[in-house]
Amino acid sequence: MTLEGKLLIGQQAISGNQADIQAVNPATGKTLDPVYHGGGKAEVEQACELAEAAYATYRETSLEDRAVFLETIASEIEAIGEELTERGVAETGLPEARLQGERGRTCGQLRLFASVVRAGEWLDVRIDPALPDREPMPRVDLRQRHIGLGPVAVFGASNFPLAFSVAGGDTASALAAGCPVVVKGHSAHPGTSELVGRAIQRAVAKCNLPEGVFSLLFGSGKEIGQALVADPRIQAVGFTGSRSGGTALMATAQARPQPIPVYAEMSSINPVFLLPEALKARGKAIAEGFVGSLNMGAGQFCTNPGLVIGVKGADLDAFIDTAGEGVKGSAAQTMLTPGVHGAYNDGIGALANHPNVRNVARGQAGEGPNACQSGLFVASATDFLGDEALQAEVFGASSLVIECANVDEMQRVASQVEGQLTITLHMDDGDLATAKQLLPTLERKAGRILANGWPTGVEVCHAMVHGGPYPATSDSRTTSVGSAAIFRFLRPVCYQALPEGLLPEALRDGNPYGVSRLVDGKRE
Amino acid sequence: MTLEGKLLIGQQAISGNQADIQAVNPATGKTLDPVYHGGGKAEVEQACELAEAAYATYRETSLEDRAVFLETIASEIEAIGEELTERGVAETGLPEARLQGERGRTCGQLRLFASVVRAGEWLDVRIDPALPDREPMPRVDLRQRHIGLGPVAVFGASNFPLAFSVAGGDTASALAAGCPVVVKGHSAHPGTSELVGRAIQRAVAKCNLPEGVFSLLFGSGKEIGQALVADPRIQAVGFTGSRSGGTALMATAQARPQPIPVYAEMSSINPVFLLPEALKARGKAIAEGFVGSLNMGAGQFCTNPGLVIGVKGADLDAFIDTAGEGVKGSAAQTMLTPGVHGAYNDGIGALANHPNVRNVARGQAGEGPNACQSGLFVASATDFLGDEALQAEVFGASSLVIECANVDEMQRVASQVEGQLTITLHMDDGDLATAKQLLPTLERKAGRILANGWPTGVEVCHAMVHGGPYPATSDSRTTSVGSAAIFRFLRPVCYQALPEGLLPEALRDGNPYGVSRLVDGKRE
Repeated sequence: MTLEGKLLIGQQAISGNQADIQAVNPATGKTLDPVYHGGGKAEVEQACELAEAAYATYRETSLEDRAVFLETIASEIEAIGEELTERGVAETGLPEARLQGERGRTCGQLRLFASVVRAGEWLDVRIDPALPDREPMPRVDLRQRHIGLGPVAVFGASNFPLAFSVAGGDTASALAAGCPVVVKGHSAHPGTSELVGRAIQRAVAKCNLPEGVFSLLFGSGKEIGQALVADPRIQAVGFTGSRSGGTALMATAQARPQPIPVYAEMSSINPVFLLPEALKARGKAIAEGFVGSLNMGAGQFCTNPGLVIGVKGADLDAFIDTAGEGVKGSAAQTMLTPGVHGAYNDGIGALANHPNVRNVARGQAGEGPNACQSGLFVASATDFLGDEALQAEVFGASSLVIECANVDEMQRVASQVEGQLTITLHMDDGDLATAKQLLPTLERKAGRILANGWPTGVEVCHAMVHGGPYPATSDSRTTSVGSAAIFRFLRPVCYQALPEGLLPEALRDGNPYGVSRLVDGKRE
Repeated sequence: MTLEGKLLIGQQAISGNQADIQAVNPATGKTLDPVYHGGGKAEVEQACELAEAAYATYRETSLEDRAVFLETIASEIEAIGEELTERGVAETGLPEARLQGERGRTCGQLRLFASVVRAGEWLDVRIDPALPDREPMPRVDLRQRHIGLGPVAVFGASNFPLAFSVAGGDTASALAAGCPVVVKGHSAHPGTSELVGRAIQRAVAKCNLPEGVFSLLFGSGKEIGQALVADPRIQAVGFTGSRSGGTALMATAQARPQPIPVYAEMSSINPVFLLPEALKARGKAIAEGFVGSLNMGAGQFCTNPGLVIGVKGADLDAFIDTAGEGVKGSAAQTMLTPGVHGAYNDGIGALANHPNVRNVARGQAGEGPNACQSGLFVASATDFLGDEALQAEVFGASSLVIECANVDEMQRVASQVEGQLTITLHMDDGDLATAKQLLPTLERKAGRILANGWPTGVEVCHAMVHGGPYPATSDSRTTSVGSAAIFRFLRPVCYQALPEGLLPEALRDGNPYGVSRLVDGKRE
């Protein structure tokens, strides 16, 4: 299809009258047509009004209808064909295979949430039957289910143009929860966003849902996003991006007459602990795996391994040598945007020029305008513990190795790192005691703890936690990847002694939805 | 035992050196010994340090050990005997039967959470087994459980000196979640608080738990509470009280370097909708039930029915007449504190003198210094819809009847009320269509919807939701009463490919805890 450069509000496609947005191919520096005339408060108002109007109908769709809608979105995205991955490559500089994989993940995620909707665990049905003969007081019939919070604002992320953008994890889980979604598309990939947005529009129409279930806004600057979060009809926010962006949205959400939850996934350096026995036995293989994880997607992952912790000595030296060789041999990769590239160079520069940081290796210089030249650095634990600046996230392929005097100092480093999405242990059987000693600290610091793997590559499943203590995310009680992400957009409602005819169907006698229920506290 | 007027920090009993606190018997206006020398930042520091130190051990207690601890607290509270209810009566002006009932609820609540801990639903165990042969990529083993957030600050409420105070719902659910608790006792009932606090101290010692699992602070003014919420070791806050108090704590929690969740239950006027057929058929009985609910505990319940909505006409007039007669005959009741009494009189006065409010009835005048003289008022829906002040909560026995022109205007009133803990419908079979039309609006406004009952008297069970949209609470996704309250103090952690010896016991193969689990998305 021909991209029209439009905002999608319900079933309409319109032009805003605020500042223009135009994508740039980061590999060439050339602009990509069409121009998107950005929206502002007027378009936020329209989208939110439609979303509010759609909510009453959409939240009471049957499990089957809602699941089919999510599956229809997936099919419509697949039906776009090559145009989607080609435009994605042009707008992001990511390789085609990555875009293809990400499309698979995006559609797989939508289908996972369809199965989650059908299974009905998200309803959290609880029934405490009446006990008319209880002494001293009878108990009345009490039943609980979850309902969607209301319209949700989703901010597309720059680094996942499909899987965390217009039809990504936040949108899929909010729609699964029964919440209409208003997306603020990321300005770096408007064409990819429009293509996906039109696929959702088609799915809405095919499923005969109210048009306000989905809208897609574009706008440069912060005004449109702030207006969206401030709109009284918006009841929750999903965001993946920078710490400054996330905290700004949190402040806006808290300053509303009615504060709302913001699920912001912000920054993480994903510490990797190399325990002594594993380092000794297979330091070279670990170093090779590390370089692969570091360079994946030019390091533009929230789960990029930005910090490696080991005990100083010959084994760690050998690891650093091998990893350094790997980094030196790393080909340059195009970064997502000039902004991301500039921030990466600033971060790398700050490390490279830090008086207490040793420069180990840089990757090959690139020829394009936004090339990422991977970096590996070393500092002592003493210096790390004394300088918060060494914990700053460098978004892109950059990692800092921390040399500890001993295992106790590794523990002190673990205690002092900020909240993280992930923490990784490389360990052998002989490291078990050390790992056991570290684990309680690691559990307080991260949402996911891995052994003998790499944090990049997040499985979309039921047990996944892509979350973690602040500042990794704004709300450690939640995950933004996996089926439990749906709970971010739900709230419980209790029904006391309602006549059968007034009770929501999911709560009626005989369990018409066939869902798992907690009856008098017992799982059925 | 002799009350010592001490703060309880771990196993110690100490005196602060800040302003004194002394309870006042609201029925007589006389002070009650002993004097409590209030604490400040130094005592917050000590209590939080101990809580932090206790957390690592306490959060990994076995299900059985933690359940036994909660049961031991209940037994220790019961072992205090008459002294507890007598002191409670003296400090609150509530009748002895109420204190006895509340003690039963408090101990029942602790035992409910013991059973909740043992059942292990709170762990939310999720297991996605490895799929080594999956194409194109294998899946590694992923397992999830919930852990406690860390030390929790609990603020005792004035209106539930036992059930929402030192060992109340917030404390019970936080302890059940594996979180040490630092209570800021309410200054109106320090003696009752000390008695219960000492019972918890004894339970901690008997169960050989680290002393920092529980501390109880006293202090006048806002400083000690603000210091507690600002302490970096505190990871969540439970509060029941005024809107101004709740929002002040929310602001402090958000301004921390690491923001934390605040569960504040603040204000609710609990609308009661009298649907036409029910009003016609049994308006008199409903009016009598209403007066009973209105006057219960001098109206000092978060769930007091402060707003009644009906269609203007002979049936509503008859309801108002009967309710007015009931209110006129209501005996005066002592209110909790001079502060509560003063605010009640101000609120009643504002209604009584409002140009668009009709005064229907006041209860009997009392002789004591803090007597509640129940009030019933009427206003038109037009005036109500045009004046936010008529939605202000009057804490105490006061209710405003709203006369609507028709059912559509009832719907408009429903749409315009703020977030509530409860909304009640009085309805007969002939009202079903009207109720169905109202229900979607009511679900967005309240955490609990009742038919043909009264919102006062909250069942402590699994399906209960004592929560609701802002400003009823700060977080509509949660409940502060019932077993689901435990989820406020938990966060998920995912373990990826951990060796069996490092995995938390609850997640190991063979389900050693025997808990309900989600395996590959299926409930087992």
